[in-house]
Amino acid sequence: MDRRQQALEAHKKWQGKIEVTSRAKLETMADLAVAYTPGVAEPCKEIEKEEDLSYTYTRRGNLVAVVTDGTAVLGLGDIGPAAGMPVMEGKCVLFKEFGGVDAFPICIDSKDPDEIVRTVQLISKSFGGINLEDISAPRCFEIERRLQEVCDIPVFHDDQHGTAIVLSAALINALKVVGKPEGSVRVVINGAGAAGISIARLILQMKLGSVTLVDRFGIVYDGAPENNPAQAEMAKVTNLEGRRGGLAEALQGADVFVGVSRPGLVTAEMVRAMAERPILFPMANPTPEIFPEEAKAGGAAVVGTGRSDYPNQVNNILAFPGIFKGALAVRAPRITDSMKEAAARGIAAAVPLEELCADHILPTAFDRGVADIVAKAVADEAVRLGIARA
Amino acid sequence: MDRRQQALEAHKKWQGKIEVTSRAKLETMADLAVAYTPGVAEPCKEIEKEEDLSYTYTRRGNLVAVVTDGTAVLGLGDIGPAAGMPVMEGKCVLFKEFGGVDAFPICIDSKDPDEIVRTVQLISKSFGGINLEDISAPRCFEIERRLQEVCDIPVFHDDQHGTAIVLSAALINALKVVGKPEGSVRVVINGAGAAGISIARLILQMKLGSVTLVDRFGIVYDGAPENNPAQAEMAKVTNLEGRRGGLAEALQGADVFVGVSRPGLVTAEMVRAMAERPILFPMANPTPEIFPEEAKAGGAAVVGTGRSDYPNQVNNILAFPGIFKGALAVRAPRITDSMKEAAARGIAAAVPLEELCADHILPTAFDRGVADIVAKAVADEAVRLGIARA
Repeated sequence: MDRRQQALEAHKKWQGKIEVTSRAKLETMADLAVAYTPGVAEPCKEIEKEEDLSYTYTRRGNLVAVVTDGTAVLGLGDIGPAAGMPVMEGKCVLFKEFGGVDAFPICIDSKDPDEIVRTVQLISKSFGGINLEDISAPRCFEIERRLQEVCDIPVFHDDQHGTAIVLSAALINALKVVGKPEGSVRVVINGAGAAGISIARLILQMKLGSVTLVDRFGIVYDGAPENNPAQAEMAKVTNLEGRRGGLAEALQGADVFVGVSRPGLVTAEMVRAMAERPILFPMANPTPEIFPEEAKAGGAAVVGTGRSDYPNQVNNILAFPGIFKGALAVRAPRITDSMKEAAARGIAAAVPLEELCADHILPTAFDRGVADIVAKAVADEAVRLGIARA
Repeated sequence: MDRRQQALEAHKKWQGKIEVTSRAKLETMADLAVAYTPGVAEPCKEIEKEEDLSYTYTRRGNLVAVVTDGTAVLGLGDIGPAAGMPVMEGKCVLFKEFGGVDAFPICIDSKDPDEIVRTVQLISKSFGGINLEDISAPRCFEIERRLQEVCDIPVFHDDQHGTAIVLSAALINALKVVGKPEGSVRVVINGAGAAGISIARLILQMKLGSVTLVDRFGIVYDGAPENNPAQAEMAKVTNLEGRRGGLAEALQGADVFVGVSRPGLVTAEMVRAMAERPILFPMANPTPEIFPEEAKAGGAAVVGTGRSDYPNQVNNILAFPGIFKGALAVRAPRITDSMKEAAARGIAAAVPLEELCADHILPTAFDRGVADIVAKAVADEAVRLGIARA
C-alpha cells in the first residue's frame, strides 16, 4: 500500500482523529441531577456573577480553538474549510498528545477578515485560547492583530510564530555549535511572507543577529516598489547596509540562511560564498531549498530542515503545545514577544549542553519533556510581566 | 453538603464535563507522518474534490454543535454565553452518553439573530448537525428557520421540538391507557411560547387531537390583540370552536392538559371540570402547574411531569440523542415534521404494550435502548422521504 493509500485508509478507519468524550459519570438519576438539571444551574449562576469562574467550572481553562479559513492549508493552498478539517483535527491531536491541551477545530467558511474576526470573537467565550492556522498572508496579520484586540484570551498564529520560535531556538544552539556569539551574525531569510517576517521579527527582538529579507523580487529594501505593507515595515529594520540584488547577493558573506520559500533555490556555490562555518535552515517542505548533503558539500557547519528524516527538524510541535499549556496555566490574556522569546530559549535549553552538536541542536518531536519546559518558561514570563491571571 | 455545594464541587472536580481526545495513535514519526504532515494532505485533497468525503475522513459525520446565545438557559433566563456553558457541556455529555453522538458547545456572544445565523453558518462545515439550545422566543423561531435555509445539515431547536416529540409520545400512550382514540381528544396547552407552539404543531400534524392554546392573556383566538406573530399564525389552526376566556374556561370538557407555563396554575377543581378520564402533563419545572397527587384527587387518569421523582417524566433525553444519531446515520439534510412524528411514535413504541399503564407511559431516561429505536425510526423515515444521503 503506498503512502497515499495508507493515509486515506487510516483516516477512514479513524472516522475523525478527535472525539468529544464525557468527563462526568452518568449512571443514575442522581448523577443526572448534578451534571445536568437541576444541579447544573449552580455553576451557571456562579459564572453569571463572575465570568472568570468559567475557567473553574467548564472546560474553558484547558481548551483551545484551532481556527482556519482553509486558505493556506499545508502546501495545498486555498482548499476551503471542509477540506482543511483533516489538518485541523491533526493539529488538535498534537495539542492533546504533546501538551495535554484540549483543542477543537473551527473551520470558517469565509475569506473576509471582518467576518472571520467577528465569528471568532463571538464564539471566544467558550475557549481559553485561539490558535490561528493556515490562514493566508497578508490577511493573517490583520486577523491576528484585530482578534487579539477584541479577545482577552491568547490569539496565536502558529504558522508565523511557532516557526519563528523553533527556528530561533535552533539558531541559538547552532551559534553555540559554530562558536559565534548571539548578535554577531548576519541572517538572510528567503521568503518574506508570514513565516519569514515573523522569523525576522523574533530574531531582531532576541538580538540574535541582523536580518536581510529576500522575496521573489529580490532583497527587500526600504522603498522597494514591490514591498507589500508588511515588507515595507520590515524594510525599516532589516537590510540596514542597503544591499540590492537577489538571493545570491544577499548570501555573500552571510552567516545564516533561513529558507521559507521554494525547493532548490540555494546551490553549494552560494553556500561557499557565505561566511565561515555557515548555518543553513532550508525549511521548504518536503523539498528544501538545498538538501543537507549539498549544503555540507558547500561548507555548511550546521543544517536544519523541516524534514523528519534529517537531523535538526525545525518542527512547530516543539512550540505550540507548550506555549498554550503555559499561557493557559496562568491564564495569560495574550502571548507577548517576550513570552515567545522565553519559549525559544526554553526549547534551546531542552538540549543538554553535553549533547549539543552539529547534528543535534533541537529536541525531537517525541521528546515529550519539551512541552513542560516551554510551558514553564512561558508561564514564568507571563508572571514576570504581571499579566498572569491565575 | 447541600445540593448546591455538591453541584459546585462536582463541576470544580470535573474541570469541564467534556474533553477532546485523540482517536489517532501517535507514538512514532511514522504515525505522525500519517495523521499529520505529509499524509494528512491526502484526505484534504480528496475532500477538496468532493466535499461529501468530509463525512468519511473527519469527525463531521458524528459531530453536533450545541449552540446557544445564553438568553434562555434553563429557568435562569438571559445569563449570557459564558454562564450558559455548564448547561451546554451537560447537553454534550447527554448526546454522547445516550446517543453515542459527539457534541461540542458553541456559545455565541450576541443576541442579534443576523449575527447568530451568520456565525453558525460560517462554522457549519465542521459539523454534521446543529442543536440549538436555550435561545429565547421568538428569536429562536427565526434563527432555526433561517439556519435551516442556509445549511444543508440538520438544524434542530431542542427546546421546541424535543419537548414536543416526547410529549406527543406520552400522549399517544396515555390515550391508549384511557381508551380514547387518537384524533378524538381536545388538548389544552397552557403557555404559548416556543415549547407550547411546537407541541401544538406536532399534535396537529400527528392528528392526535384538536388544540387550544392559552397564554398569560387567556385563550389564543384568531384576532386577539395580544397575539405575537407566531401566536397569530397558530390562532388560525387552533381553538376552532372560538372559545374565549382563561385557562379555566379552556379546560372545561377538555381531555388533555399540557402545561409549559408556571407553578400551581391548575387546581383539582379545574381537573374535575375536564372530560372523563383526563390526561394531564403539568411540565413546569421543578414545580408543576399541579402536583400529580392533586391532579389525581381531581380525577386525572394519567399524569406526566418534567420531574424524575414522579412517574412519566417527559424528558428530552428520550428524543434528541436518537434523533441526531438517526439523522447523522443517513446524513439527512434536515429533520422534517414526519421525522419528528416517527421519533415520537418510536418513543411510544419503546414501552411494551404489556407494561403500559397509567404510571408507565414513557421509557425512563436510563432505558438506553430508546436512542437506537428513535434513531432507526428517524433514519427510516428520512430514507422513505428520499432525503437520506448515506
